[in-house]
Amino acid sequence: MNKVIKLASRPTGKPTDKNFKFSEEERPEASEGEILLKTIYVSVDPYLRGRMSEGKSYIPPFEVGKPIASGIIAEVIESKHKDFEKGEYVSGMLEWKQYQVSDGKDLNKADKNLAPLSAFLGVLGMTGLTAYFGLTKIGEPEKGETLVVSGAAGAVGSTVGQIGKILGMKVVGIAGSDEKISMIKEKFGYDEGINYDTTDDMAAAINKACPDGVDVYFDNVGGEISDGVMKNINKFARIVNCGAISLYNETEMPTGPRPEVFLIKNSAKMQGFIIGDFQDRFPEGVQQLGQWLKEGKLTYEETIREGFDNIPKAFLELFEGKNKGKMLVKVAED
Amino acid sequence: MNKVIKLASRPTGKPTDKNFKFSEEERPEASEGEILLKTIYVSVDPYLRGRMSEGKSYIPPFEVGKPIASGIIAEVIESKHKDFEKGEYVSGMLEWKQYQVSDGKDLNKADKNLAPLSAFLGVLGMTGLTAYFGLTKIGEPEKGETLVVSGAAGAVGSTVGQIGKILGMKVVGIAGSDEKISMIKEKFGYDEGINYDTTDDMAAAINKACPDGVDVYFDNVGGEISDGVMKNINKFARIVNCGAISLYNETEMPTGPRPEVFLIKNSAKMQGFIIGDFQDRFPEGVQQLGQWLKEGKLTYEETIREGFDNIPKAFLELFEGKNKGKMLVKVAED
Repeated sequence: MNKVIKLASRPTGKPTDKNFKFSEEERPEASEGEILLKTIYVSVDPYLRGRMSEGKSYIPPFEVGKPIASGIIAEVIESKHKDFEKGEYVSGMLEWKQYQVSDGKDLNKADKNLAPLSAFLGVLGMTGLTAYFGLTKIGEPEKGETLVVSGAAGAVGSTVGQIGKILGMKVVGIAGSDEKISMIKEKFGYDEGINYDTTDDMAAAINKACPDGVDVYFDNVGGEISDGVMKNINKFARIVNCGAISLYNETEMPTGPRPEVFLIKNSAKMQGFIIGDFQDRFPEGVQQLGQWLKEGKLTYEETIREGFDNIPKAFLELFEGKNKGKMLVKVAED
Repeated sequence: MNKVIKLASRPTGKPTDKNFKFSEEERPEASEGEILLKTIYVSVDPYLRGRMSEGKSYIPPFEVGKPIASGIIAEVIESKHKDFEKGEYVSGMLEWKQYQVSDGKDLNKADKNLAPLSAFLGVLGMTGLTAYFGLTKIGEPEKGETLVVSGAAGAVGSTVGQIGKILGMKVVGIAGSDEKISMIKEKFGYDEGINYDTTDDMAAAINKACPDGVDVYFDNVGGEISDGVMKNINKFARIVNCGAISLYNETEMPTGPRPEVFLIKNSAKMQGFIIGDFQDRFPEGVQQLGQWLKEGKLTYEETIREGFDNIPKAFLELFEGKNKGKMLVKVAED
């Protein structure tokens, strides 16, 4: 048998397990030019929330009644494709199924000898590349500058902070628990950490942690946390809009202080991006991240849940901040 | 005698004539290395509102009890400075006085044979340079793209639209009266105009005027007009935050829709600037603007009030939208 998870209905506000539907179907067979894949690791990510809604976005929405898809590591268990061999591992945007066939398009190989398989969904995958290109290309960091990262203990944020340190910046992280603050300082080398959950005045806390002001703000959360950072930006500051997890579940248009006057006064920019914008440069990013990983300059945290049936639950836990680093579900042994 | 206008008090919200104080003092004399200047034209500009308030900004605030300063064209009526001759005209940041002395620092010469003197406060001065560098360096325009300009009939906006046309863009302007809409289309070559005062649904109006979406938004006003534009931005759109006249007189922090999600979905940027950021490149800008002016590709509108005593009133009229193009006060005959 072959379990599948489909979109049962579009969420209003925060998603619940009712938006997901489990079903079973026949295990498919590979035709000529195809490979049969067995799912090993499934990545759950905040951006999937956007695809659960209707409406224009950078990637088309999931369809109700159809399988959900995300970054997946799978094992090739049968190959009728000249470029793939049985026993190899691949990563790519695949469906939430235990088994599926693929024509190999847009799949990358994941080499277990280079790094643990799960890393190919994290620090060597989309999250690592998001951190790398977002910080270096949108954030335009300079040695000696101050970098603030929100969602600092998350998959992207923890990598951004480390890259900031590699590049010689002062790095301040914002996260939602004392445990996360300890982790970003001890494990990821952040210079300072601010627990937003126990901080009344974010602007004052940023001001204290960043006596020279904020040059680059890598924002994964948006909303009120960002408002406090914006009050402390320097001339020519760069705000990298990578994510806005605090806003994704809003049913009304979220409002807040208008940024125009801050941006004009400081000749600053806010710039959004998605990782697909840098598709042509992925090899360069993977090469650099892999080298830092090998040199021990880069480390990562991951939260791994077990079992195919727990994929929706793991996704929902993201909105409770229950993950440290990349959130994954292990579906089968590699 | 020598009339002077000083800051009497800091405005709360919209400035009034009570914030200004007229006084008289002795006409000064030029010492060795100085020139004596007679004020001819005084520029009044929305950004001066910012300098009337206390608090951190890109230029220091005016001091209560001290003269106000802005862009001024003056005649050299006496020179004890080797670089200046009696009868020459200069432009620079000078005080609201009929007569003043200067050591010549940061003054530029204004050549009446090149263009009318008032142009050196407008299209060949800060407003023209603001339009030129803001559009070309921050807006990164491409031929065939759609440019939307708010405050389109203003000094900066009318120049931005014309430069957009010179660069081969489709150009849509937003202004506050049917008369201004006619002017931007007939005099400045805008393809379309939207009167925000008679438009209920700005997002729908922009959508109709820009069937291919908005690639560059040159924003002089901020606030609700911008909200309608933001809903129509394209992938990789650039929002140039040049001014926010709709927000300058707010006493509370103005709020509005949070832009993060728009920016991320569209890989778009919002970027503020002030003209001083491009100081090193002014000669390049003046040269290009002067050439377009000579070729008849660039024209301008100006609103000239008469008389030294009317300077504060002309400034206050800016916030009523009473100017078409650059607002100036002619203080003496040239």
